[in-house]
Amino acid sequence: MDVDWGGVLVNPGMLSATDYASVASITIFVALICACIVIGHLLEEHRWINESITSLIIGLTTGAVILLTTKGKSSHILVFSEDLFFFYVLPPIIFNAGFQVKKKQFFRNFVTIVLFGAVGTLISFVIISLGAIGIIRKLDIGALEIADYLAIGAIFSATDSVCTLQVLNQDDTPLLYSLVFGEGVVNDATSVVLFHAIQKFDLIHIDAIVVFNFATNFLYLFSASTLLGVVTGLLSAYIIKKLYFGRHSTDREVAIMILMAYLSYMLAELLDLSGILTVFFCGILMSHYTWHNVTENSRVTTKHAFATLSFIAEVFLFLYVGMDALDIEKWRFISDSPGKSLSVSSILLGLVLVGRAAFVFPLSALSNWRKKSPNEKITFKQQVTIWWAGLMRGAVSIALAYNQFTKRGEAQQMGDAFLITSTITVVLFSTVVFGLLTKPLVGFLLPSSTGHLTSTLSFTSENLGPPKSYLSMLLQNGQGSIMEDEHNNPHPTNLQRLLTAPSRSVHHYWRMFDDKFMRPVFGGRGFVPFVPGSPTEQSLHYEQ
Amino acid sequence: MDVDWGGVLVNPGMLSATDYASVASITIFVALICACIVIGHLLEEHRWINESITSLIIGLTTGAVILLTTKGKSSHILVFSEDLFFFYVLPPIIFNAGFQVKKKQFFRNFVTIVLFGAVGTLISFVIISLGAIGIIRKLDIGALEIADYLAIGAIFSATDSVCTLQVLNQDDTPLLYSLVFGEGVVNDATSVVLFHAIQKFDLIHIDAIVVFNFATNFLYLFSASTLLGVVTGLLSAYIIKKLYFGRHSTDREVAIMILMAYLSYMLAELLDLSGILTVFFCGILMSHYTWHNVTENSRVTTKHAFATLSFIAEVFLFLYVGMDALDIEKWRFISDSPGKSLSVSSILLGLVLVGRAAFVFPLSALSNWRKKSPNEKITFKQQVTIWWAGLMRGAVSIALAYNQFTKRGEAQQMGDAFLITSTITVVLFSTVVFGLLTKPLVGFLLPSSTGHLTSTLSFTSENLGPPKSYLSMLLQNGQGSIMEDEHNNPHPTNLQRLLTAPSRSVHHYWRMFDDKFMRPVFGGRGFVPFVPGSPTEQSLHYEQ
Repeated sequence: MDVDWGGVLVNPGMLSATDYASVASITIFVALICACIVIGHLLEEHRWINESITSLIIGLTTGAVILLTTKGKSSHILVFSEDLFFFYVLPPIIFNAGFQVKKKQFFRNFVTIVLFGAVGTLISFVIISLGAIGIIRKLDIGALEIADYLAIGAIFSATDSVCTLQVLNQDDTPLLYSLVFGEGVVNDATSVVLFHAIQKFDLIHIDAIVVFNFATNFLYLFSASTLLGVVTGLLSAYIIKKLYFGRHSTDREVAIMILMAYLSYMLAELLDLSGILTVFFCGILMSHYTWHNVTENSRVTTKHAFATLSFIAEVFLFLYVGMDALDIEKWRFISDSPGKSLSVSSILLGLVLVGRAAFVFPLSALSNWRKKSPNEKITFKQQVTIWWAGLMRGAVSIALAYNQFTKRGEAQQMGDAFLITSTITVVLFSTVVFGLLTKPLVGFLLPSSTGHLTSTLSFTSENLGPPKSYLSMLLQNGQGSIMEDEHNNPHPTNLQRLLTAPSRSVHHYWRMFDDKFMRPVFGGRGFVPFVPGSPTEQSLHYEQ
Repeated sequence: MDVDWGGVLVNPGMLSATDYASVASITIFVALICACIVIGHLLEEHRWINESITSLIIGLTTGAVILLTTKGKSSHILVFSEDLFFFYVLPPIIFNAGFQVKKKQFFRNFVTIVLFGAVGTLISFVIISLGAIGIIRKLDIGALEIADYLAIGAIFSATDSVCTLQVLNQDDTPLLYSLVFGEGVVNDATSVVLFHAIQKFDLIHIDAIVVFNFATNFLYLFSASTLLGVVTGLLSAYIIKKLYFGRHSTDREVAIMILMAYLSYMLAELLDLSGILTVFFCGILMSHYTWHNVTENSRVTTKHAFATLSFIAEVFLFLYVGMDALDIEKWRFISDSPGKSLSVSSILLGLVLVGRAAFVFPLSALSNWRKKSPNEKITFKQQVTIWWAGLMRGAVSIALAYNQFTKRGEAQQMGDAFLITSTITVVLFSTVVFGLLTKPLVGFLLPSSTGHLTSTLSFTSENLGPPKSYLSMLLQNGQGSIMEDEHNNPHPTNLQRLLTAPSRSVHHYWRMFDDKFMRPVFGGRGFVPFVPGSPTEQSLHYEQ
């Protein structure tokens, strides 16, 4: 390995900020996160307000207080860092998304989800980039290169569908829920991969070869990252299955799962791949194989510990975004021309609306044309809901914008300052205004789907396994599986199989392959061998 | 609040070490921790070797490989930082100790534990300090002040009893186990408080006033830190009880518990108190009140998630200590006089042995004199075991030594270099040699107590609630309490009460007070009010 070991040192400054100030800032931040959780809970009766909005508003308020206390010098406590975001905050969110995803729905609608998440994001990217080149360039906001405009396309293609997911009901509209949820994750990965591909290439002279290389690189990143996640996930399943950690220690199993998930992310970053895609697929594999190889206690613990980490990370993010929005430095550059800044923000918001409409409706039509069964088709009202669900912009956009337009958290040029402040404006506006409108809109479009609301950020966890259903399942069959499982239903007959759509058959062949080759090696529900002291023995013990 | 907001910025360098090197070092470290866990598990059949020793050895090996690869330039991947240790690694370990402690045993033996942990540590501190002044000063190893010698006393008074606890059986020798465990925690807190008190005072001119001020300050730190921990713990119980988070989200409850525990630690550091003591008592209060107010899933999750965090932190520490031991910079200073370095290490090791003997046997006699019942007395063989249990020196000693004798991880003077290398030598020798001898020694002294070994670092968690006993309890009474509870036994009659020792009565009055005033307000087992949707309702639901 050709690593410069002498240089493999974390910057000493990173670890010895021993001063009072950093203790104070960490303390205040932790206290604020607690406040967000408690206040978010108290506001829960007003179901339109969720934790994202609460955190944003508390962040804004704190920022204002700090601004007043320092007499306009500063408004934030922590310096924003892309690294903090991409190395510590984003991995738990994406991993948890993969870990808690309803695999059956996800893979059954896989083609449609990839259509929306990957192809749709590319369409949106092209439209926003072209729109930015066509309109914003004319506003004369400063020197921007082609790569900057393409970056704008990638930044504003990254959606944040958490808000809509909180309003949708997974049981009443499973298709819609899985489409919005799946699209959100694939979209995150696509826009980040796209963004990094843009930064890597010299995009000043665009010709056929550059476009071809760009496309090849994009596909390579996509497939290699997925493969790495799959391999790490399988490895963790194999290790835990072979070693029977459960015989001795729940803590060891949980530790191995957490560490290997994080390892997959860091390894992907080290190999210049997309950590987001890797850790997402690692999460899916871990929930499909590894999770079934561990003890009952480990299952409950991992499920909730991962959801909690993801929850804290999301609250942290929105809190920070709110606090950072008031940063005086960023607004100083553009204070001479507030009108122009408002124009840029409005144009971007318009492009977001158009860019999303441009793919949701055509791709829905395409998807409907593929499907035979009428209850698998996406109705027009559902299409509008999908369109709306992807209008919010969130933390990924902010992080990418900082990456492109700042050096160490401060905008350097006029053009950069305009784009940073516009990104913040679009994120704040879309999260708060569109977020507050989501509940009434969905209630109007799909009256049946908003019956029981789950208004927490950690929707996935609660929907998959509330304490009640978990315990009753435990008492019923002694297995206590929380995750939904594709092997619950009896196998369809041949006639049934012939009548279903081709995508069903793909799913069926995958299941045959899984049962025959994968599960015997990597474990999974019902395929953990019977060994005294292993998790299987324990669950069998209680079945009797 | 008189905080300089402008300065309340985490050092930007802390968050933007965006280079390849830091990604590589994090990746390698995570991979090594995984390796330690897997190899530690595989070596488990050889019960003498535990995860501490495995991690130390893997650390040493990795250090050697890096040393060879860089041709003698460097041996570690991360720069050691006191902050990393005190802000991120130590809190989970100490909090988990408080959270999983067997409260009944702990409080029943409270007087003896404090006698050993606080008074004993002070005696050991005085002896080691005087010995260092008397003997090491004559070796002429460089310029050291009185404060340095006192710091040596504090550094080598901090024990690491994990190794002995892994060998002892909690059910066969509950008294011994609780004494060794309790002493270990109080000892950590005492030596750290002592160490910080030494650094704060001008100890060049020692007179009666300085000694009095020192003692007052020490007592203030002790009581204020405990109080802060108690208040934070009660606050978390009150918040969760009042708001019924359980009605909606396990993740919220878990998040609040993690965040408030961490908040208590950081708040203590901010107020210049001892975070260790604070977070320990916060853990005790949380397990006594808060833990009973949350859902069943939250209970399982917090119990194992805290144990896992603590487990990962311990493996990380030993791995680092092993890797850091080979750091070429430290050994360069003393390479001219290896004999002298060996002498210093041997003298310190001798002082550790003597300093511990000087309090274990007298204080045991004192404790036996207080107790009336013969099975509460500490036998001589048990006294030897207690003496042995506290001979190992671990990560706290390393961290304190770095704090006193280095600037940013590098020793500056001859004397400092001698003391750093001697600390590393004593830690390595005592952990590996004494550690390997512990099992045979305890087997020889207490043949009955080593029947079932729990050879994981996370002994507390496994002993308190293996999956089996948890599930069977769950099926029996529908409450599924994992933590042992002091209210299980029927209340003793007045006659019984008269016959027991006075310390039992103190415990009894505390229980009366707890039942009458504390539990109705802060919750706790059996005192969570019946409200639809609350955790109580759910557990009652399953009782039927």
